[in-house]
Amino acid sequence: MAACSRFFEGTSMKLVTYRASVEAAARLGVLVEDLVVDVAALATAQGKVLPGTMLGLIDAGRAGLDALRDCLDKTGGRLPAGTATALGNVKLLAPIPRPRKNIFGIGLNYVEHVAESAKSLDTSKDLPKQPVVFSKPPTTVIGPGHGIEHNRKITQQLDWEVELAVIIGTTARRVRTQDALGHVFGYSVMIDVSARDNRRAGQWIFSKGQDTYAPFGPCIVTADEIPDPQVLDLWLTLNGVEKQRSNTRHMLFKVDHLIADISSAITLEPGDIIASGTPEGVGAGREPQEWMWPGDVVVACVEGIGTLRHAVVDATPE
Amino acid sequence: MAACSRFFEGTSMKLVTYRASVEAAARLGVLVEDLVVDVAALATAQGKVLPGTMLGLIDAGRAGLDALRDCLDKTGGRLPAGTATALGNVKLLAPIPRPRKNIFGIGLNYVEHVAESAKSLDTSKDLPKQPVVFSKPPTTVIGPGHGIEHNRKITQQLDWEVELAVIIGTTARRVRTQDALGHVFGYSVMIDVSARDNRRAGQWIFSKGQDTYAPFGPCIVTADEIPDPQVLDLWLTLNGVEKQRSNTRHMLFKVDHLIADISSAITLEPGDIIASGTPEGVGAGREPQEWMWPGDVVVACVEGIGTLRHAVVDATPE
Repeated sequence: MAACSRFFEGTSMKLVTYRASVEAAARLGVLVEDLVVDVAALATAQGKVLPGTMLGLIDAGRAGLDALRDCLDKTGGRLPAGTATALGNVKLLAPIPRPRKNIFGIGLNYVEHVAESAKSLDTSKDLPKQPVVFSKPPTTVIGPGHGIEHNRKITQQLDWEVELAVIIGTTARRVRTQDALGHVFGYSVMIDVSARDNRRAGQWIFSKGQDTYAPFGPCIVTADEIPDPQVLDLWLTLNGVEKQRSNTRHMLFKVDHLIADISSAITLEPGDIIASGTPEGVGAGREPQEWMWPGDVVVACVEGIGTLRHAVVDATPE
Repeated sequence: MAACSRFFEGTSMKLVTYRASVEAAARLGVLVEDLVVDVAALATAQGKVLPGTMLGLIDAGRAGLDALRDCLDKTGGRLPAGTATALGNVKLLAPIPRPRKNIFGIGLNYVEHVAESAKSLDTSKDLPKQPVVFSKPPTTVIGPGHGIEHNRKITQQLDWEVELAVIIGTTARRVRTQDALGHVFGYSVMIDVSARDNRRAGQWIFSKGQDTYAPFGPCIVTADEIPDPQVLDLWLTLNGVEKQRSNTRHMLFKVDHLIADISSAITLEPGDIIASGTPEGVGAGREPQEWMWPGDVVVACVEGIGTLRHAVVDATPE
């Protein structure tokens, strides 16, 4: 039984998807200090039932989160045997290893990034009047530490973009801006990897939608812990050198606006992910331009959520 | 017991997803003349087990299709009681009511459509050198007869596009063109509804990704029945007036090329859908331009597959 002295000071909820061993199935966990507490196992130990996957917990809605908090509170700080594993001994996966649809990406959503993009890419220097939406297939998603594949037969312009990821909790159709954040389940970190030389007739999905192009995690922080998503520092380093540093207050369209806007025409559903755009400092905007190559290590962080660290690996076919 | 004299003449396989009544669950059926034969019920009647959903059958692969054919052959033309319903008495849904990811759309894939688009939209008059890929979320999908929603607060330029839809059967990663058609499960019809005034910074997902913008069906014809997908007539009428008529031989990038190209970077998975592009004759390309409005009826057909008929309905919020 593991003691967790600080756990009961708040309702802090960092949720992860993890494997206890290489062969083990993916399971839903909640971080308690340096421990991963298995959600379904904790419930079982208390004669309760809780979902075993992140999407299951999202689908369970507010009641699911409340029941999980209740289970944690009931432990009285003493986790039942077999329910917790040291974080260092598990393999973290993407919090939602397999989204149910493409990720909604937002382009040109930080003012200075609009300027650098217009200088180096084929985008306008004018600020967009509405959010610029694109998508990344579920096959882009990789978990913490997984290699980002570089295929030099396809790209010589692999770029980085650190972003705040927004995870939708409840169906949103035509919601008002002032109601939008009520539909958020939580927040995470995503790197919107982009092969700049793979845009086609202006469309970005081939540039941003390739396998492994969406490092995602390491956890989802529930929305109650981040009442204002527009005050978060975010940054990215490549091989230890800082390339991006900004704050989500510089978003052109804030998270509530993004949700209201998309939901005006496209129903958002539980488990949907919005990658809310990247600040300035991408490789395409630098002079000279810089790109990622096999052996490079990219580290991305959003304040209060966590850090992703990924190596770029050669995946060029014979 | 229903007699089906012509059934055994071939391996003709038109698969549908249907409801036997308004309250009934969606089920997988196979068309036998004017009957919908319930796949799972037919198998059960023979002491076998077959999937009850289209995605289940796709996941079952070649073995699943062979087992279904075997079940049909074993009936000897006399369908067991309770396994068949007259087509006119069921409600057809989209063959895959809920795709597992966004539909892959292909833009500018018929030569004359490239020309009309360059004239009226913001696309290049040059033929694209590579397929132009975009996406439509799963929430765009509607089944035969379902209303296409028109929100006049969002669009005054709602357009039609008849397309051959390609349904992937087996995982395709970096496949060669000559192997590509072997990954196809079957073919269907899709209308790629497009709000032309909803493009954003060149991105098409908001234009093409709104709820109900992907009428899909009425069936999936298995690939063995369409050995060459590049010889199919396709056409579309609006309020009874022919607007589009072409043949899939005019595709700039053929189906095998599309699969090879996408799979070079984006792994295609069982159940994935590729909407392979539309020929000339869209509303944006006409002089004067024409758009769809509530009360209009659009009918789209691909030879040998089937016909979709959809009314446009007003869905403008208060």
